[in-house]
Amino acid sequence: MPLEKDFGGFKNILIIGLGLIGGSVAVSLKEEGFKGKIYGFDLNTERIKKAVEIGAIDEGFSDFRKVPWDKIDLVILATPVKTFLEIGKRIKPYLKEDTVVTDVGSVKGELVKQLEKILKPTVFIGAHPIAGTEKEGVENAVKGLFKGKKLILTIDREDKYTQKVEKFWTDLGSKVEIMDPYLHDFVFASVSHLPHAVAFALVDALINLSKEKGVDLFLYPGAGFKDFTRIAASSPTVWKDIFLENKKEVLHTIDEFVKSMEKLKEYIQKEDEENLINLLSESREKRLSLD
Amino acid sequence: MPLEKDFGGFKNILIIGLGLIGGSVAVSLKEEGFKGKIYGFDLNTERIKKAVEIGAIDEGFSDFRKVPWDKIDLVILATPVKTFLEIGKRIKPYLKEDTVVTDVGSVKGELVKQLEKILKPTVFIGAHPIAGTEKEGVENAVKGLFKGKKLILTIDREDKYTQKVEKFWTDLGSKVEIMDPYLHDFVFASVSHLPHAVAFALVDALINLSKEKGVDLFLYPGAGFKDFTRIAASSPTVWKDIFLENKKEVLHTIDEFVKSMEKLKEYIQKEDEENLINLLSESREKRLSLD
Repeated sequence: MPLEKDFGGFKNILIIGLGLIGGSVAVSLKEEGFKGKIYGFDLNTERIKKAVEIGAIDEGFSDFRKVPWDKIDLVILATPVKTFLEIGKRIKPYLKEDTVVTDVGSVKGELVKQLEKILKPTVFIGAHPIAGTEKEGVENAVKGLFKGKKLILTIDREDKYTQKVEKFWTDLGSKVEIMDPYLHDFVFASVSHLPHAVAFALVDALINLSKEKGVDLFLYPGAGFKDFTRIAASSPTVWKDIFLENKKEVLHTIDEFVKSMEKLKEYIQKEDEENLINLLSESREKRLSLD
Repeated sequence: MPLEKDFGGFKNILIIGLGLIGGSVAVSLKEEGFKGKIYGFDLNTERIKKAVEIGAIDEGFSDFRKVPWDKIDLVILATPVKTFLEIGKRIKPYLKEDTVVTDVGSVKGELVKQLEKILKPTVFIGAHPIAGTEKEGVENAVKGLFKGKKLILTIDREDKYTQKVEKFWTDLGSKVEIMDPYLHDFVFASVSHLPHAVAFALVDALINLSKEKGVDLFLYPGAGFKDFTRIAASSPTVWKDIFLENKKEVLHTIDEFVKSMEKLKEYIQKEDEENLINLLSESREKRLSLD
């Protein structure tokens, strides 16, 4: 018999940052029948207004002093990752002893370790839902965004708090997986941050090639090109922060990718058909295995 | 009043190469009510069988000597581009004086010039439909594949033959555009060949990164990753040939792309937020303009 949906037993939730992901957590909770209050925090009062209008949150705040902290037992950081440490310091004095702080950020590693330190004795549990769209803002929030999607918890222990956070996400439909925070940053540098960097760089190259020949290459978006570059339409602010916060792993994966690119170039240059077809075939097999 | 659909007045057509594109031309012609015979040529007799079975062609051949050349007034080269010159030489003796030869290849430039020479006095008209899928073979042929899609004719003159070929494609729903064959190769190296090279190299890098850390990165295909790498599932043989046939332009666009990648890397390395956000924002704007 499946467990009752209780979202880990959290009564009232504060979501800090009413962007696409924060908003999607809120509307998904409502959709799934979460009974408690959902509070929102955002410095942008327009976003709060919109979030209330679309029924994502019950009440919003732009001043931490006005938040009803005594009612809140789960805080979700959903702002850009670079703001996490500062926000951690700002909210710490207000937190009840058994409030849990978690996040939805794409970078973990050192950041998780620092947040754990800052918030102590309050528990911080790093979480990363592998879900999203290239759109921004609470107005683009998607109900059920996390259903069937992986969610990484970067914890090294199993206690009542981690079980509660795990249940919270499971009840939103996520498939929870535990991972070391440093391995997490390597994995997502590879499968997410690198592809975004590549998409941005590819469009940049086409802008420059267009100038070189005085022809607007974007008039010829052949088969696959739109799909391929869709993620280059992602938020520049969000991605600047991710690239910088996960700098070490991102630079490493870019180096590895440039090596592959140079290898491919060399095979073409030398007309080395055997190595060329091997590289293309191996990539194709691997990609097909994903479908 | 729109012109009657007469497919340029061609009576009977020979499609050489029963792959995805050749097959899609055939099934689209049938779908649109082409009245003449469609003959197919392929060295692979299995492919001929399939093409007849699915009703793509009326009759197929694996030996040029058996083709009813006296009936054919349009020949479409739909094999890998590297075979074009050899096929041109092979079929030349059989061609009637007013038969038109065209193609559906992704590389033009020098190849077009050479084919024009080889086939003279028979007319060769280079054509490149900007349409396709990552699948292969006549069994994956798509009716209406060319509808609403661009088709590039790489000609430098307007005569009765080019008008006929133009009408042929317009009647299949294509939006015909005339372009210099050398400019064509630069444009499609940039918007098609480079993105394919990048997708293959990206998957290759992830294979290597997986080995490095002993973790299967392909278990974590986050948001956007599948779309982004879909074209890496394209045919290795087709793409090896395209990369080699359009070598000069492909190498040039790879160099330009690696420059963009290194620039992005430098901004991340130096934490140069201003230049980083400018690059990401410009790419985003340009990409959004495509939707």
